[in-house]
Amino acid sequence: MPSKEPTAFAVILGGGSGTRLWPASRRARPKQLLSFGASESLLGAAVRRGAALVGLENTLIVTAADQAAAVRAAIPDLPAANIVAEPMPRNTAAAVGLGAVVAQRRAGPDAVIAALPADPFIGDEATFARLVRLAIAEARETIVTIGVMPTHPETGFGYIRQGTRLARPGTDAVHDVGGFYEKPDRATAERYVSSGEYLWNSGMFFLTARRMLDEARRHLPSLGALLDEAVSARDADAVVAAGYADAPSISIDHGIMEKAAGLRVVPGAFGWNDVGSWAALPALRAPDARGNVVIGGATLIDGDGSIVMADEGAPYVGVLGVRDLVVVVTKDAVLVIPKDRAQDVRRIVEAAKQSGRDDLL
Amino acid sequence: MPSKEPTAFAVILGGGSGTRLWPASRRARPKQLLSFGASESLLGAAVRRGAALVGLENTLIVTAADQAAAVRAAIPDLPAANIVAEPMPRNTAAAVGLGAVVAQRRAGPDAVIAALPADPFIGDEATFARLVRLAIAEARETIVTIGVMPTHPETGFGYIRQGTRLARPGTDAVHDVGGFYEKPDRATAERYVSSGEYLWNSGMFFLTARRMLDEARRHLPSLGALLDEAVSARDADAVVAAGYADAPSISIDHGIMEKAAGLRVVPGAFGWNDVGSWAALPALRAPDARGNVVIGGATLIDGDGSIVMADEGAPYVGVLGVRDLVVVVTKDAVLVIPKDRAQDVRRIVEAAKQSGRDDLL
Repeated sequence: MPSKEPTAFAVILGGGSGTRLWPASRRARPKQLLSFGASESLLGAAVRRGAALVGLENTLIVTAADQAAAVRAAIPDLPAANIVAEPMPRNTAAAVGLGAVVAQRRAGPDAVIAALPADPFIGDEATFARLVRLAIAEARETIVTIGVMPTHPETGFGYIRQGTRLARPGTDAVHDVGGFYEKPDRATAERYVSSGEYLWNSGMFFLTARRMLDEARRHLPSLGALLDEAVSARDADAVVAAGYADAPSISIDHGIMEKAAGLRVVPGAFGWNDVGSWAALPALRAPDARGNVVIGGATLIDGDGSIVMADEGAPYVGVLGVRDLVVVVTKDAVLVIPKDRAQDVRRIVEAAKQSGRDDLL
Repeated sequence: MPSKEPTAFAVILGGGSGTRLWPASRRARPKQLLSFGASESLLGAAVRRGAALVGLENTLIVTAADQAAAVRAAIPDLPAANIVAEPMPRNTAAAVGLGAVVAQRRAGPDAVIAALPADPFIGDEATFARLVRLAIAEARETIVTIGVMPTHPETGFGYIRQGTRLARPGTDAVHDVGGFYEKPDRATAERYVSSGEYLWNSGMFFLTARRMLDEARRHLPSLGALLDEAVSARDADAVVAAGYADAPSISIDHGIMEKAAGLRVVPGAFGWNDVGSWAALPALRAPDARGNVVIGGATLIDGDGSIVMADEGAPYVGVLGVRDLVVVVTKDAVLVIPKDRAQDVRRIVEAAKQSGRDDLL
């Protein structure tokens, strides 16, 4: 019989590097390890929030094997056994599955896993913590997600439609999930937002280890078989090492959540920002009176609405008289791009790659 | 009796560093040592032009003692004795005086010295050479300068008014100098240019060694005395070393030319550009179809009217989507500034100085 507060694990999904925050983010230093001038990285903040909710001993990071050392160095307090290294990247369905295996082996099949992407910034941590507790409690019964109340018609995110509101005490709502929706075009996104029925899909999912294994078995049988084998094996790591390459590379959204039944969603507004480009930085770091964010000792004179960052070991950075510009300097690369074209940084990364500068990727 | 072609010396004035081309230009690497991606520096081009006119053996560089080693390294073909090191900077009157001393000691008082600033870019070298030959020929009789036909109402230069045109064979004109004029305000500059009577003062002067010493004696007596002593001394260097600190620190324009009588000016249009700021670079290096100048392997994607330079040893530079922007990256500094504010680079340099970064000056 489950206790009133089920044992819960934060499964922080630390994979994914992305090029949108190049040159600060690299293969070897993915976005979640960046701190943008603050005292903690995005991953560090995620671990701190997770530890506050479920305890550090129940906070897991699933990350690529070749990033595990960097993660360990970045989060030295985390028990080494709580860093779950994927032999190779296999997207989030498999990563959450690994978290479920660890949770079930440690605390049984009723353990709730809170699968939390490592890289979003959370501005209102108190609200976030309250909603996570609610989602964990609901997760004893079914799969739960937290949906972010949209602040603008973003076309870069998937959406979740809220179904019937369920009767719950307190002011925080719980709804049936009415459906998952792919990244929309602009007009559709505007319709979603104005309807008030749609939420951003934050990629946070809450469910028991048992439910995760059940769903994997049903919708991704080869993954399900691997997870079952790992749960009962004497050496789970060896099972994963042997079989992970054959696991399907699919997101938990597409692979499981969109097919599963009875999902619930907790809507919330808690300053969530996925730091999708340099243009997001003013949401993380309070801009000055002229809208500038200056990080790392860079010099900005007479600028407006600009982001100027000098990374550790970077050359001296002097910027003057610019408007709505992004200037990011690391020890080996310089990026200059208008804020409203910050997504196009991939074209610079591609050019570096084309010219054989793999060291910059 | 002087020969038809008097012995002439090119006295290249290699002092002055300036901060307007920071971060490429530094105390230790002044503007004239920069090449802006070409195969020769501004100084190298000046020496090459001088050597073509008067021979390498008669080409002198007057430079600050603490820059002499860098100059020697930059111009290895020049005889070491032709690098005249000033013990300390004393502006151009004294520098030209040193050139006159060397010229007179080597070739007598009738030797003509062509005092040529090291740092302007000359686009039309054939025309320039023709006008210099004319000026050298005229200089047997008096002091001659070459005035640059203005292309716009520049407020950053002094002007020379052309007086009576003198009767000379050929199409190149020689005028009496009608006067020297300080850097004008905008309205005055416009009046100067529209009148057709005014030329930019290029700082190029042509006169015999005898005349230089005469004028120094008359207008700058302490300098005159030092030069006289150096001309007749067994060890001229020792005289200069002992007395140069007491030489007046004044430009040859103010100290001598504005006071001297009988000056002539040769007007010319030969693609002269003083490279007064980064905004001048498109005059030196042919811009692409969108008006961009990209130097040193920097990557510029979808830019217009911009200047992007990666100096030797600089980090990778990736710039996208900018307009009329200057991005200059060296191994230890990054400058980002709009082209139309390129003169304000001194404010960045000042900020670096204020924060104790003397290594960047």
